Amino acid sequence: MYLDNSATTQVSEEVFEEMLPYFKEEFGNPSTLYSIGRESKKALELARKRVADAINAKPEEIFFTGGGSESDNLAVKGIAFKLAKKGKHIITTEIEHPAIKETLYFLESLDFKVTYLPVYENGIIKIEDLKEAITDETILITVMHANNEIGTLQPIEEIGKIAREKGIKFHTDAVQSFGKVEVDVEKLNVDLLSLSSHKINGPKGVGALYIRKGTRVVPLIHGGGQEKGIRAGTENVPGIVGFGKACELAAAQLDEHYDKLSAIRDELIDKVLTTIPEAYLNGDAENRLPNLVNFRFKAIEGESLILLLDAKGYQASTGSACSSNKLEASPVLTALGLDPVDVHGSLRISLAPESDAFDVDAFVETIAESVQRLRQMSPLWNQELDYDNIMCKKHSDTCKRC
Amino acid sequence: MYLDNSATTQVSEEVFEEMLPYFKEEFGNPSTLYSIGRESKKALELARKRVADAINAKPEEIFFTGGGSESDNLAVKGIAFKLAKKGKHIITTEIEHPAIKETLYFLESLDFKVTYLPVYENGIIKIEDLKEAITDETILITVMHANNEIGTLQPIEEIGKIAREKGIKFHTDAVQSFGKVEVDVEKLNVDLLSLSSHKINGPKGVGALYIRKGTRVVPLIHGGGQEKGIRAGTENVPGIVGFGKACELAAAQLDEHYDKLSAIRDELIDKVLTTIPEAYLNGDAENRLPNLVNFRFKAIEGESLILLLDAKGYQASTGSACSSNKLEASPVLTALGLDPVDVHGSLRISLAPESDAFDVDAFVETIAESVQRLRQMSPLWNQELDYDNIMCKKHSDTCKRC
Ligand SMILES: Cc1ncc(COP(=O)(O)O)c(C=O)c1O
Ligand SMILES: Cc1ncc(COP(=O)(O)O)c(C=O)c1O
Repeated sequence: MYLDNSATTQVSEEVFEEMLPYFKEEFGNPSTLYSIGRESKKALELARKRVADAINAKPEEIFFTGGGSESDNLAVKGIAFKLAKKGKHIITTEIEHPAIKETLYFLESLDFKVTYLPVYENGIIKIEDLKEAITDETILITVMHANNEIGTLQPIEEIGKIAREKGIKFHTDAVQSFGKVEVDVEKLNVDLLSLSSHKINGPKGVGALYIRKGTRVVPLIHGGGQEKGIRAGTENVPGIVGFGKACELAAAQLDEHYDKLSAIRDELIDKVLTTIPEAYLNGDAENRLPNLVNFRFKAIEGESLILLLDAKGYQASTGSACSSNKLEASPVLTALGLDPVDVHGSLRISLAPESDAFDVDAFVETIAESVQRLRQMSPLWNQELDYDNIMCKKHSDTCKRC
Repeated sequence: MYLDNSATTQVSEEVFEEMLPYFKEEFGNPSTLYSIGRESKKALELARKRVADAINAKPEEIFFTGGGSESDNLAVKGIAFKLAKKGKHIITTEIEHPAIKETLYFLESLDFKVTYLPVYENGIIKIEDLKEAITDETILITVMHANNEIGTLQPIEEIGKIAREKGIKFHTDAVQSFGKVEVDVEKLNVDLLSLSSHKINGPKGVGALYIRKGTRVVPLIHGGGQEKGIRAGTENVPGIVGFGKACELAAAQLDEHYDKLSAIRDELIDKVLTTIPEAYLNGDAENRLPNLVNFRFKAIEGESLILLLDAKGYQASTGSACSSNKLEASPVLTALGLDPVDVHGSLRISLAPESDAFDVDAFVETIAESVQRLRQMSPLWNQELDYDNIMCKKHSDTCKRC
């Protein structure tokens, strides 16, 4: 069973059907004058309307991109380059997706200053910290809606109010939240918002950036006049069509999926925490996505757990897909202030919108067995039970138990 | 009949079949550790090898992007930001695609200096001009292989030799040439080379940048570690798979298509120039793509001709798709030194790889009729024949006939 829907999802049958004609029959370039191009143009604009409707925006505020990462880069660099003369200070959090974090590191190399707000043990920023961080130089606040590793939700609405009062542009990365909780650009008070198609059963390689009317950005991909000059390149018509359909479906089924998924999530959390010794939930227990949970198990290597679970037919992950190839500690879990040893023992489970067939009991039993098996082989687990001083040597001066 | 294959092409049946499994069955994220992601990863690496083989590169020198425009932006900004400390001078031509030109305008706003080499009446730069333009500050030369409006080929091999002697990085935009003439990164002496999938019967929204081993660029899209940290974002697996297949097919059929297409092209040029009065070929007669021709017809509005031809079942264009929505004069034709009135009367015809069914005689007859009809309504045409002085009023001081 595939339990890594935060990494990517399967294209749904309805989305796929909608895309099909645009590969071969209706293959025209939407920028051309003649008949065949006009069909593509129409399809593009219908998709734009569907995306806009799903987040309570206007079609002319939707700009298609090549994915969530590109949307994030366009938002952050686009505002930074546009407003550099006004100021060079940006505020963000310690747990943004790499598409934001690495973009900010790049801007720091160009003399921008960035404040990374702490998130504390629950994974959520404090509004007071944000207020204190704002200076006259602040041009942009970028705070993700839902975190991709632990599923916690930030107080976007409140942040947006403060940003608006201060006249600061506000961007949120809604790649993980869209389709899982309500995403309404008016309620959230955002100026820019990133979306990605492949997280909501749409095709890979497509995304969108919402840009509020009146907000101006420097393009990331310069060139032809597509997307009103904000994003050059021949439009990925089938991809965009599929993304539009996926948005329409996600919005229509939001409430139903929310109820179903959060019930399963709560059952899963309850059973894991009561069945497995030394198991913990990462991130806030209340403010979180309905489809994503992240546990940690003391004295376990997350990667080993993933491989054992895969062998038993469950595909899950340790954290974000982008960093799962690197064996470094998750910066998100580290930001929660966890013991450095504990951040390696994490397991992220993210459910598909329709998960009726998911047998929680069987799954929790499989985790329990796997965890037990790994702990039997784990010097850390056995040390912890028997030889406190050996463990401390391993920890050296980072050990909080010394 | 679709005669605008330089704008975009239909996805071929073989390419489409190859892509299909990766939307629904093999939808895994290539960056994940478990089984389903590994299938996607394998498909990605096979595609990388196919692209590499088609241009005589190594797979590790191929970086997938969201299209030709993104590849161009990554190449030019990537080198500019990487080498800004070494120098801020870039050399290019007057007829680059907007994806290069607009990118350079952006860099000019960041204090880079750009030399735009003239192309003269044949549409080709002079090597002496290039040599003269090089300074100690020059960090990059970017010259397109084949022009997208007139099909002329630049002396890339020679430019590459000079760049290498001087230790200057050299990029070429091979979006239009790839699949039409030989594109071999070793013979061409390039360090970076842009490709786009949808021009060679692959899907839209995918491209690649070849980056020679040892050449370093700053990423355009920052984020996760995909594409060795050079291009973040979950990989568009079906798109990349399709692009790989399209490259394989294009390379295998290159010679056959070249011979077939250039014979049709020559017949077309010959018949248009001999049948239609005051018809001219734009760009060099020899150094050109086999599949693309660009004519101009005196006293004609290109847009009206396009619409008439469309009504008769032929889809062609005036120039590049990116600018065909704007009614401004083509900067490429302007760069050839044409009379400002004449640049509006152009017609670009670009053939599909397999054009056996193309009846040149019938098509030329249709153009001839359409041109005649438009000229009957054209004050410009009638003025030119009868009332020289009225024409001059219209031309005012740009008229070379005064
Ligand atoms: C020469 C050239 N470069 C770049 C591009 C841009 O490619 P894409 O449409 O894939 O972004 C095109 C086509 O539009 C082109 O003809
Ligand atoms: C929160 C968040 N932002 C951005 C992205 C990047 O999206 P994409 O993979 O479409 O580039 C992801 C997923 O990888 C994500 O989870």
